[in-house]
Amino acid sequence: MVRGIGFEKLNSIQDALDKLLTSLKSLGVEHVDIFNSVGRVLAEDVFAPIDVPPFDRATMDGYACRAEDTFGASIMSPILLRCVGSVKIGEVPKISIKSGEVVKIPTGGMIPNGANAVINLEYTKDLGETIEIYKSVTPYKNISKRGEDVRRGEVVIRRGEILQPQDAGILSSLGIAKVKVYKKPKVAVISTGNELVQVGERLTNGKIYSSNNPMICNALRELNFEPINLGIARDNENEITRKLENSLNYDAAIFTGGTSVGEKDLVPLVVERYGKILFHGVAMRPGQPTAAAIVDSKPIFMLPGSPAAALLSFYVFVVPSLYRLMNIKIILRKWSKVEGELMDRIPSEIGIQSNVRVYWEKGKIYPIRISGSGILTSFVKANALLEVPENKEGYEKGEIVEVMLIRDITEVCE
Amino acid sequence: MVRGIGFEKLNSIQDALDKLLTSLKSLGVEHVDIFNSVGRVLAEDVFAPIDVPPFDRATMDGYACRAEDTFGASIMSPILLRCVGSVKIGEVPKISIKSGEVVKIPTGGMIPNGANAVINLEYTKDLGETIEIYKSVTPYKNISKRGEDVRRGEVVIRRGEILQPQDAGILSSLGIAKVKVYKKPKVAVISTGNELVQVGERLTNGKIYSSNNPMICNALRELNFEPINLGIARDNENEITRKLENSLNYDAAIFTGGTSVGEKDLVPLVVERYGKILFHGVAMRPGQPTAAAIVDSKPIFMLPGSPAAALLSFYVFVVPSLYRLMNIKIILRKWSKVEGELMDRIPSEIGIQSNVRVYWEKGKIYPIRISGSGILTSFVKANALLEVPENKEGYEKGEIVEVMLIRDITEVCE
Repeated sequence: MVRGIGFEKLNSIQDALDKLLTSLKSLGVEHVDIFNSVGRVLAEDVFAPIDVPPFDRATMDGYACRAEDTFGASIMSPILLRCVGSVKIGEVPKISIKSGEVVKIPTGGMIPNGANAVINLEYTKDLGETIEIYKSVTPYKNISKRGEDVRRGEVVIRRGEILQPQDAGILSSLGIAKVKVYKKPKVAVISTGNELVQVGERLTNGKIYSSNNPMICNALRELNFEPINLGIARDNENEITRKLENSLNYDAAIFTGGTSVGEKDLVPLVVERYGKILFHGVAMRPGQPTAAAIVDSKPIFMLPGSPAAALLSFYVFVVPSLYRLMNIKIILRKWSKVEGELMDRIPSEIGIQSNVRVYWEKGKIYPIRISGSGILTSFVKANALLEVPENKEGYEKGEIVEVMLIRDITEVCE
Repeated sequence: MVRGIGFEKLNSIQDALDKLLTSLKSLGVEHVDIFNSVGRVLAEDVFAPIDVPPFDRATMDGYACRAEDTFGASIMSPILLRCVGSVKIGEVPKISIKSGEVVKIPTGGMIPNGANAVINLEYTKDLGETIEIYKSVTPYKNISKRGEDVRRGEVVIRRGEILQPQDAGILSSLGIAKVKVYKKPKVAVISTGNELVQVGERLTNGKIYSSNNPMICNALRELNFEPINLGIARDNENEITRKLENSLNYDAAIFTGGTSVGEKDLVPLVVERYGKILFHGVAMRPGQPTAAAIVDSKPIFMLPGSPAAALLSFYVFVVPSLYRLMNIKIILRKWSKVEGELMDRIPSEIGIQSNVRVYWEKGKIYPIRISGSGILTSFVKANALLEVPENKEGYEKGEIVEVMLIRDITEVCE
């Protein structure tokens, strides 16, 4: 840029962003408690230390039985089986069963030896010592087998994923209380301008209240970054220098104002003494006088002073850079809707709204095979939900449908 | 519901949700600092206590002048004007100008008496006492007039809006340091089940690690609600009763597990003694055994124990209820993309990517008239952005375009 004359040449947004992202490295890592992990970026592949479930479990309230004993049962011709006891949830069954016998079992109960299926309570009638069975079950019906959800040693969540509530669930079910994540950037926020008065102070003539610091601090907070408000610097090199030096105690700095090419636009001038200006002037509107530099390996963002331009530049340049400091690039955000071709048929029952977990990748949609709503990994392996309305019987293979992402789609940088 | 038999009748999702939402009232209000206001729901209309800008300001670096003196100026036939001084930013100009005179002025500087326009610095040449002018300006060119952005007494942000970063900006520019918002619900989280072991404890045979508490706590946190983890209740009435009584210290409670119709599904049984069950059993999959009740005017959510079902029920029933406690219904979320018909033409310059602030309402898109990127209210009056790519000259009136919402669309309940 040429002081006092205007920008010699404007960078395209993509060029400017590329210069920024290729100049940054990720911050270090730290451990966080899984109760407070949402939005953090996983810094390691997580392997399952145990099988989940750790034993064969009932997925319904009912009777554990040998499936073969129920074959042929119906409402018209029920089969009678002998109840030899009950399984308590959270305990190892003391009984095993033989042919002709059943054991009462609650959802989540451990399947006793000898049993290979569970008959739903609603298809039975308790006659005291015997139980009337109205429906046959196939082997392993209503049983979640040991390791069915997660097999010990398997990678459960990959490095670079933004941790979701469901991830905290699966980590917890594996007994993992803390995970390694990339540090979140702490970001210094500074406005420049002789005309600025901080909110709360008295407004004298010729001055205006500063709007950028509260705006940028909230924009950082909304995305779960940590803002440090360093207040206002007057338009003189000393004050800007002091704020810049202070900002180097943090991971990044955002200046607003003083970034254009007028006499008072001293921020790039001062910053250049400390590091390398990557670009100054971008072909976007608003936001043209945006600049960025690297000082001590840290990004220093110089956003226009006009608030609308500052906010737009924040989303275009600052946000991708801050995610770069956590080693990822965001491709698509959670809750976005994306279209794709169904790679398999999805059946659904009329009268019930189904939410089918699917995996969306580049316009193709793969239903996740699950055997019961207890299977939490279906929520971790899936990255999107397909809603089947109450009045629809499902979707055919090859149909183009819209799904909603339930996790951010990210790419790892290093 | 009929214990041990199954749900007699399933509620439709909409009926169940209606029962919930019509049973809830909003929590009280509190004041928050605008530096930490993002995501909070405004509990009052905010009126502007001052004009913004509070005086006529330059929107460019250049020379304050009388527009009439520049008429006819061009590169081929520049006009010479006499420079009689300069305006310092943040100060009241000591000089006024007469015909044939200019005063140097920075962006944001107060326009001196006698001037009615600002010539961009880039269309001038400083010859010492005189300034060569290469381009004519029209009256009020490059001036942001007093009250142009916000007029004193005007409503700036309405009750029921979810406060955005840009709102904090405008509030600050009005000198408003705190705003009245609805209190955020504090939500107790409890899992039930004899088989559950909290993460961090030793897993004995027949037990599994609880996944729901960390999952639900993170899901609350992600949406900026405050989770209080009350841990695990065994499947007995005493423990459930104790957890329920404890949870009544907060604004809402979420139980997971023990909500179906098996013998150990004691949560609705216990909750019914304290208040009114609104529904039990919903026509959705997963999530069918969801129930909700009101106890002491507080919502008690009973979600299925299976994690995937619990999470889905959380989004379907808990989230709208928690927003109801803050007196709003969310119609559309920020960052969603919506289509609409352009109600006016939008011009744009080739080679520069423009982001046009627009107001989207029910499929119609109104461009917001702005006069410079400094106009922050354009970001508050607008609720969406229309991107015009570098290679496009704009859009015609009547075109169907896609815009991105930059604020949540909400409805006030009471």
